[in-house]
Amino acid sequence: MIAKHTLQAAELLAAPRGASGHQRAYDYVRGQTQRLIEPLNPEDMVAQSMVDASPAKWHIAHTTWFFETLVLKAFVEGYRIYHKDFSYLYNSYYNSLGERMVRGKRGLETRPTLDEVLAYRAYVDEHIAALLLRASNDEALLLRVSPFLTLGLHHEQQHQELLLMDILHLFSHNPLFPAYQSSPPTLMRDVPPHRWLDHEGGLVEGGYAGDGFHYDHEGPRHRCFLVPYRLGSRLVTNGEWLEFMDDDGYNRHELWLDDGWGWLHKNHVSCPLYWQRVDEQWHVMSLYGLMPLNRHAPVVHVSFYEADAYCRWRGYRLPTEMEWEHAASHYPMQGKFLDSGYYHPQVADNEDYHQLFGDVWEYTSSAFQAYPGYRRLEGAVGEYNGKFMSGQNVMRGGCCITPQGHMRLSYRNFFYPSMRWQFGGVRMAADVD
Amino acid sequence: MIAKHTLQAAELLAAPRGASGHQRAYDYVRGQTQRLIEPLNPEDMVAQSMVDASPAKWHIAHTTWFFETLVLKAFVEGYRIYHKDFSYLYNSYYNSLGERMVRGKRGLETRPTLDEVLAYRAYVDEHIAALLLRASNDEALLLRVSPFLTLGLHHEQQHQELLLMDILHLFSHNPLFPAYQSSPPTLMRDVPPHRWLDHEGGLVEGGYAGDGFHYDHEGPRHRCFLVPYRLGSRLVTNGEWLEFMDDDGYNRHELWLDDGWGWLHKNHVSCPLYWQRVDEQWHVMSLYGLMPLNRHAPVVHVSFYEADAYCRWRGYRLPTEMEWEHAASHYPMQGKFLDSGYYHPQVADNEDYHQLFGDVWEYTSSAFQAYPGYRRLEGAVGEYNGKFMSGQNVMRGGCCITPQGHMRLSYRNFFYPSMRWQFGGVRMAADVD
Amino acid sequence: MIAKHTLQAAELLAAPRGASGHQRAYDYVRGQTQRLIEPLNPEDMVAQSMVDASPAKWHIAHTTWFFETLVLKAFVEGYRIYHKDFSYLYNSYYNSLGERMVRGKRGLETRPTLDEVLAYRAYVDEHIAALLLRASNDEALLLRVSPFLTLGLHHEQQHQELLLMDILHLFSHNPLFPAYQSSPPTLMRDVPPHRWLDHEGGLVEGGYAGDGFHYDHEGPRHRCFLVPYRLGSRLVTNGEWLEFMDDDGYNRHELWLDDGWGWLHKNHVSCPLYWQRVDEQWHVMSLYGLMPLNRHAPVVHVSFYEADAYCRWRGYRLPTEMEWEHAASHYPMQGKFLDSGYYHPQVADNEDYHQLFGDVWEYTSSAFQAYPGYRRLEGAVGEYNGKFMSGQNVMRGGCCITPQGHMRLSYRNFFYPSMRWQFGGVRMAADVD
Amino acid sequence: MIAKHTLQAAELLAAPRGASGHQRAYDYVRGQTQRLIEPLNPEDMVAQSMVDASPAKWHIAHTTWFFETLVLKAFVEGYRIYHKDFSYLYNSYYNSLGERMVRGKRGLETRPTLDEVLAYRAYVDEHIAALLLRASNDEALLLRVSPFLTLGLHHEQQHQELLLMDILHLFSHNPLFPAYQSSPPTLMRDVPPHRWLDHEGGLVEGGYAGDGFHYDHEGPRHRCFLVPYRLGSRLVTNGEWLEFMDDDGYNRHELWLDDGWGWLHKNHVSCPLYWQRVDEQWHVMSLYGLMPLNRHAPVVHVSFYEADAYCRWRGYRLPTEMEWEHAASHYPMQGKFLDSGYYHPQVADNEDYHQLFGDVWEYTSSAFQAYPGYRRLEGAVGEYNGKFMSGQNVMRGGCCITPQGHMRLSYRNFFYPSMRWQFGGVRMAADVD
Repeated sequence: MIAKHTLQAAELLAAPRGASGHQRAYDYVRGQTQRLIEPLNPEDMVAQSMVDASPAKWHIAHTTWFFETLVLKAFVEGYRIYHKDFSYLYNSYYNSLGERMVRGKRGLETRPTLDEVLAYRAYVDEHIAALLLRASNDEALLLRVSPFLTLGLHHEQQHQELLLMDILHLFSHNPLFPAYQSSPPTLMRDVPPHRWLDHEGGLVEGGYAGDGFHYDHEGPRHRCFLVPYRLGSRLVTNGEWLEFMDDDGYNRHELWLDDGWGWLHKNHVSCPLYWQRVDEQWHVMSLYGLMPLNRHAPVVHVSFYEADAYCRWRGYRLPTEMEWEHAASHYPMQGKFLDSGYYHPQVADNEDYHQLFGDVWEYTSSAFQAYPGYRRLEGAVGEYNGKFMSGQNVMRGGCCITPQGHMRLSYRNFFYPSMRWQFGGVRMAADVD
Repeated sequence: MIAKHTLQAAELLAAPRGASGHQRAYDYVRGQTQRLIEPLNPEDMVAQSMVDASPAKWHIAHTTWFFETLVLKAFVEGYRIYHKDFSYLYNSYYNSLGERMVRGKRGLETRPTLDEVLAYRAYVDEHIAALLLRASNDEALLLRVSPFLTLGLHHEQQHQELLLMDILHLFSHNPLFPAYQSSPPTLMRDVPPHRWLDHEGGLVEGGYAGDGFHYDHEGPRHRCFLVPYRLGSRLVTNGEWLEFMDDDGYNRHELWLDDGWGWLHKNHVSCPLYWQRVDEQWHVMSLYGLMPLNRHAPVVHVSFYEADAYCRWRGYRLPTEMEWEHAASHYPMQGKFLDSGYYHPQVADNEDYHQLFGDVWEYTSSAFQAYPGYRRLEGAVGEYNGKFMSGQNVMRGGCCITPQGHMRLSYRNFFYPSMRWQFGGVRMAADVD
Repeated sequence: MIAKHTLQAAELLAAPRGASGHQRAYDYVRGQTQRLIEPLNPEDMVAQSMVDASPAKWHIAHTTWFFETLVLKAFVEGYRIYHKDFSYLYNSYYNSLGERMVRGKRGLETRPTLDEVLAYRAYVDEHIAALLLRASNDEALLLRVSPFLTLGLHHEQQHQELLLMDILHLFSHNPLFPAYQSSPPTLMRDVPPHRWLDHEGGLVEGGYAGDGFHYDHEGPRHRCFLVPYRLGSRLVTNGEWLEFMDDDGYNRHELWLDDGWGWLHKNHVSCPLYWQRVDEQWHVMSLYGLMPLNRHAPVVHVSFYEADAYCRWRGYRLPTEMEWEHAASHYPMQGKFLDSGYYHPQVADNEDYHQLFGDVWEYTSSAFQAYPGYRRLEGAVGEYNGKFMSGQNVMRGGCCITPQGHMRLSYRNFFYPSMRWQFGGVRMAADVD
Repeated sequence: MIAKHTLQAAELLAAPRGASGHQRAYDYVRGQTQRLIEPLNPEDMVAQSMVDASPAKWHIAHTTWFFETLVLKAFVEGYRIYHKDFSYLYNSYYNSLGERMVRGKRGLETRPTLDEVLAYRAYVDEHIAALLLRASNDEALLLRVSPFLTLGLHHEQQHQELLLMDILHLFSHNPLFPAYQSSPPTLMRDVPPHRWLDHEGGLVEGGYAGDGFHYDHEGPRHRCFLVPYRLGSRLVTNGEWLEFMDDDGYNRHELWLDDGWGWLHKNHVSCPLYWQRVDEQWHVMSLYGLMPLNRHAPVVHVSFYEADAYCRWRGYRLPTEMEWEHAASHYPMQGKFLDSGYYHPQVADNEDYHQLFGDVWEYTSSAFQAYPGYRRLEGAVGEYNGKFMSGQNVMRGGCCITPQGHMRLSYRNFFYPSMRWQFGGVRMAADVD
């Protein structure tokens, strides 16, 4: 049931058809955001726990501002913006779109209240509906609106994931360990053994292929030469990570990148981000609150530095993003995404044996850089991805809180190597000798 | 009416009589806190705008924890604390009272919600009432409870002022400039001219005299020799401050203390904290929202460094705290305090001609240090004031958001010289040649 | 003459033959270091101008320690280390080789004095000579010693370049603008016009090919697919950089990477590192002291961020390192290196038309990452390069202060994108449409 | 011999008579500076170990610049300054005297070399001599020159002490523990027992009395009321400090000022500044190099925070500066100063029983503030002391590296409460009950 539902959603979002298709896609995404904030109270939605995170209220206002700015202001003549100060409040990082608040102060905006922000959402939804109604009789208009509306929907899906990441990070600072969701799923099973899957490589193609929606940096499609390589059949587990810790992995400089070794000492890192010792037992803070650590489940919330050190400790390495994409291209894009209703990575099972998609974002060794032939877009849209091509690493495959309709084989997510609040995990790779 | 009411309150608080007097004092103070948060919504009460400030919700929980810890846990056998984690959450800085949260993270505690904190208040209020009921028949018990309960009430009054300071600081970061109170009072009149009032000085006495409640650092009563001096008849006004600015006061090193000159450049300070240029006009952010600057009203929210530089520019100086206290001892403790219903300093009028009390805290040149014979108290109570006797300066006289029952002639408030979010203003002093 | 001399040096260093060849190579490199410090006085050699730089005295002690530790201690039985504290003082970043001083405090080591450090050098030189003498009759010994001795020589050459970079950085902080070398060369000529040179690309090979000395990260040799591309025929000049500045290049966010835009504002960057306005004219601080800016000479001491922004402003991009290497493989490795006696990049001339080698290190868009099949070496040698494969960018081709014998077509230098004290310049690349 | 010599010096410096008296005073002070740098080599004189310290070379240039600027430029018509950039290089903190180098970069000025700075000294000395020669026939000129020349001499004496403080701080960072002086004196004796000396207090006078040279902030002479108090007969010793440490003094919050408790944790302080464990024994770094700790000698190089905590631990307190001055006024100003040839505080003996003067600066509880009637001077001279009257504490009595001719009963030295590189020690005070 779920699968069918989300596949429809994926189709809806990749290439919505007609004005009504756009409206259905819009309703689907906007409705999902609304459902995501249901377990929160207004107070939860105010706070910002670090400069990289944002308050939940900000996310739902910002995504609305995105539609107002790129769609309504652009395509509705005489459109009256909802509030003159909202652009200042809810612009994230678009230099092209004017002045904005200092990022680290978002948690101070107790006003507008949640109710006011919801009214803003309703106002924009209403005007989008009116615009699409008009476009149902004006194909030229629809053609012009469609790319921006569709971008807005994918943008909002990204913020759905961010909203959950940020709530978890916020709640992790609370000594009461609040749960976003009660009743964690109890898939109790042993993880299957780790095996190597070999790939021939050679001159392969990578990057987005097709004509649906995708981000600019997923292309152009291009050729790339891969030496024979192997990928682990499954993700690294919490139990395996404990072996790394027991073998003094966090104290052995020879396993670490120099930047990582500095980061680790400066921040006193000695375990994954949300791990805690309670009554002599390892627990993990999650969207289900504090849970005992499941040794069979995939490790999550480690940094690139930690992922890299772990692989070196095992005598292996991380895959490059082209290795990952090439290998994954042989499998259907199935896995536990947000729509599956799991808010924490689960133990691998037969159905999604490889866990290539969903559960956790997988680290690659590849720096986030332009593909051959890539050109940064002009204007605000050009600030979406291209300006971040420095100092970050690519992650692949989506995670348990990524909306399925948002994911693609060619999807490139990117984070700085010290970041850990994203749902990042590890799959090993190796050379074929 | 108000005056009478507050005088009664002052009496109640200085030395409550009998169990019922204590209950009346308790109800009075706790009720005032409750009234102060009425204009706020739960979201406003979450955020912390800087490390020196706290969320409003934290203030009302912390003051409750203070009663629970120093009164209920100490004097009610078998008392069940409300929640095991609240001491960790709501201890402010008492090392004697166990572990506590990092101060700068108070704004992340979206839970417990406001409703839960209000329930905590009700629970503690109930147990205090029960304790006092018991004490109404047990004089020995009342005698033991009284100092701590009374301290708790004065402590809560301090937090009433802090709560308003912190709300103003928080709202000042909001581009919408929210108002805590609507309808600012419109006392439109010209400020009276500045005159000098001379004092003989000589060998005088200072420090608390009496047998009511007072903080330890207001005593012991002691002798001190004062050279003849003069005090300004009124506070420095916004209009006069503009003259200082127009004369390049913020750019002339010779007017400033070296620390102040460094502070000013590091923080790009060029006007009082809440001043803003809007449409070419100076405005000031206040608890009434953004208001046009009134040139006749006292300047407020300047730092000690600024106050000191201003006086030097005029060719004068700040008073010492003993000069201030000696001069003020000749006048009744009248002025605009919190109970007067003014949330911003007002233009001087005839009634409160000198404005020695109320409106703004007045800077003194005196470092906050022990009076001769002072000894720090043992235990948690000893952490209240004594441990802060380094690097801070004394301010005198209370301000418009200080509860009147809280003020005394001998009251010593203290702040670091760079702080500006307290309601601090300037009265000049000079030597008599 | 010079050319012949340096070619011999290059041969000597790539694969020294026999014990006497090693001794000749050793004498050559160690002697060059000695010559480099001749223009300095002992006081100049004490100071450290930033955490990334080191005092000249430290460089000459550290390179000596490198030989003592990796050669003498390893291969001379009963070797007595010169001083028990020197390993602590002169270890740079080798965690495998024990405790060491905090990097930023190197400028505080006024003792040992320069004389003592020179005595240390003499002591080590003497023992190296004795070891090589022994090895002249013991081929097995020579075989074991050779890799480490050779590494030590290349290591010292790197520090020769660092020593000059660091001296320039130090002198740039001195209001007297001291000159390391007097009489700058006066090659006054116009720069040739900029042209595009096209390359077919395709499936090419990159990485070190041969059997001489090279760093581990220059290999393995591997295949790579290149889309057709073009490279600029010459470097970007100071004059062209002024056009960028005149067109407001440092103030237009759309030209910059997000990290670069943040870096630029935090550090108030608005021109290349050593540029200064003196009497309304642009000057540049150099190893020849302060000189008027030559518009025809290559721009130097810009960061990766600036290089990237410049290319985007022109509508082009930086080359990838494989594009650069593939293009450069068609030309002889000729250019102005340290041995040429130029301490500042010169205007392009006919002889070294492309300036692909020497003059300035050329930025590539490539992150410094492992080639396919690369494995980090074990032990201290493994810390040489592998652990830095994060967050840095590759530069190619050597510069005017790089010893020629040190350079290779496959040589990969790497720096963080904000660094500017290396002699870094810009060659543009473009796609072939 | 020494005593007689230094008394003459003191007299010379307090009020030099005639042009020749000025010249003798000048020669005396300038010569002492010259002798102080004899044990240093030029390299030692380059480095700056922290922002509060300066290179020795800077001190000797700065004191010279002071004479050039305040005497030669002011009183010698047509005087040609030695070098146009030296004011920029050698101005310390006088905003009135023009632009200057960032303080923390003094250690980067390897040029001018020591030889050049010594030539600068000689040039200025020569012109001062010529000026005084002229003044020997021109009383009016002498009268005008005298205050500035005398100030320059006292200023240079302050820098003599700073130079030694800074050299010790620098050498303490060197793992070789260099000694400024060899052969430490071996006054091996037991410290006499600690006794209390009572003082009546009452209405006393304090501040400079006389007509010799003194700093502006030592006056005006003024009255002050002292409650009866007692002072310790001697300084706190290293042995007593070890008792404090053994009793967990650094880990008991109730002993500390809040600022001190924060400082201690931020800086991981657990013993006096220069203490080190070597082979399980406490040692102390000194101007004699690393020495075993002498339990009988006075503790030195503790901060105000530590001094304050120690006294509280013993149940006592620090004296106020007026208590100290009043008590000390009953004793001759004798003690071990720089001229005695001791470069480290010595065990108390009979001769200097109280050690009120010399050996170590004694902490007082008094903030550095203006005496009643104090007015900051105009111009550069006004920046000497007055602008530092914020956040610092007064120390009294001079130390073993203070030139005797520089000391006065009324001398007020001042430091921030966290500073430890000055020779600061502890004498306890108490109330008389």
